[in-house]
Amino acid sequence: MSRAIDALVDGVRSDVIATDDRGLLYGHGMFETCRIVDGRVPLWPHHRARLSSTALRLRIALDIKAIDAEVADLAATQPAGVIKVLVTAGPGRGYGNNAGTARRVISVFPLRDIPPGLDTGATVRICATRLSLQPALAGLKHLNRLEQVLARAEWNDPDIAEGLMCDVEGRLIEGTATNLFLVHDGSVATAALDRCGVAGVMRQVLIDERPGIDGPIEIRDITLDELDSAEECFLSNAVIGIQSVSRVLDRVGAWPQPGRITRRIATVLEARFGFPVSL
Amino acid sequence: MSRAIDALVDGVRSDVIATDDRGLLYGHGMFETCRIVDGRVPLWPHHRARLSSTALRLRIALDIKAIDAEVADLAATQPAGVIKVLVTAGPGRGYGNNAGTARRVISVFPLRDIPPGLDTGATVRICATRLSLQPALAGLKHLNRLEQVLARAEWNDPDIAEGLMCDVEGRLIEGTATNLFLVHDGSVATAALDRCGVAGVMRQVLIDERPGIDGPIEIRDITLDELDSAEECFLSNAVIGIQSVSRVLDRVGAWPQPGRITRRIATVLEARFGFPVSL
Repeated sequence: MSRAIDALVDGVRSDVIATDDRGLLYGHGMFETCRIVDGRVPLWPHHRARLSSTALRLRIALDIKAIDAEVADLAATQPAGVIKVLVTAGPGRGYGNNAGTARRVISVFPLRDIPPGLDTGATVRICATRLSLQPALAGLKHLNRLEQVLARAEWNDPDIAEGLMCDVEGRLIEGTATNLFLVHDGSVATAALDRCGVAGVMRQVLIDERPGIDGPIEIRDITLDELDSAEECFLSNAVIGIQSVSRVLDRVGAWPQPGRITRRIATVLEARFGFPVSL
Repeated sequence: MSRAIDALVDGVRSDVIATDDRGLLYGHGMFETCRIVDGRVPLWPHHRARLSSTALRLRIALDIKAIDAEVADLAATQPAGVIKVLVTAGPGRGYGNNAGTARRVISVFPLRDIPPGLDTGATVRICATRLSLQPALAGLKHLNRLEQVLARAEWNDPDIAEGLMCDVEGRLIEGTATNLFLVHDGSVATAALDRCGVAGVMRQVLIDERPGIDGPIEIRDITLDELDSAEECFLSNAVIGIQSVSRVLDRVGAWPQPGRITRRIATVLEARFGFPVSL
């Protein structure tokens, strides 16, 4: 387990938080995991936008300028790394006792656990744990992550890079810590996240900026059968960028590496944000 | 907000926890809120059993004897109060990084926010926030409580004692911090909790010991229409014991106080565990 190189709690160097914090008591908060490239966080505007919109939905009053400044200061000390911004609703025992000031925990970690490069591709599996449907929380990267914890506990083979999760009604949604993209007939699709799932920052970048992608990305329900029949399959998150998938255990889906469109997206992302294609 | 009178983190007096704790990062943990009566926790065997079974489901290795001893020591200092036992999976960033030692936070609070007595009965409302269906977590009092936080944020009228929650398919399940019981034709029923909800300790006591109740308690799906047609309605939790309901806002359900069966249960509970009927 990597330890924080440096950490600030409400702007003060610290590695502890009060036990009456609503983040601990109820998971009342959210987080962003951001990649540092040459002392900067190239996707910070996207992370910042998601923090702000999530705070509204969770009724948390953010001091976004303090977060901006602390992220910039901590990132500046590192040529490469990961910065985690965790914000809670602050102190307050009792579900309704939400009058406290938001608390921020900003930590820097070394870059680690980057999966194998696109030339080999990742092996993934399908998780038995399913995502429940909760439109009130869908899309948010909040602190209620037990479904991901249970899903990730299903395997410990280090050769399996990620587990894919379906919702309780069987739609294919995402990985435990990544979003999923499939290519059919040269067209890229990812799951709709209006009932469950995390709307990842890198997913949003791909949808908005379409790096190396012709035409819009389809956002819709996706079935497991479509995974089998896809021409290419890749994962995204804000730390790894994108990760090509070569096969899915116990399914027929398997793809020669690297896929043409996956490779093109990775190349444009690398040029635009400094996310290496292969590490 | 009430502050802790006293608190132990892993047996040491403290009011902070490490920021790499999985309770904060993912809500990977659970809690019990227990009533102290004359320096003891009369329902401790029930709380203890739920902690142990929840730990298995969340893959947390409990030191239950340390918790036993600390709960007894802290309770002994108080003639009345509430003791909160919160257990997390311990340190470990990354969903799969669950090799740490469980951490325990045990805090004592004054008794507070006890709703009005059975002679008047509580006014409750129906929440718009619904419970998602997740059999893998159903029944557990884990730390992923955003649904309850959102539901409790729907009202701030202090005359409303509780909000009742339906699941996403419309079944009536429970209150934000209580379980719900209805009486029809003299028979008591409460919601099945195999898809969502928290299996409260006082609910389990009522089911197992049937204090003042003739015949078994029915555990089954319950509809909102059944709420309207009930002869009596009451809530339970391990701090308040049981709480009679007199009316539900915006529904036709309304009941003269005190209900005959509700009063009988409360009287037996008071004699057996020292939970006052009216405070």
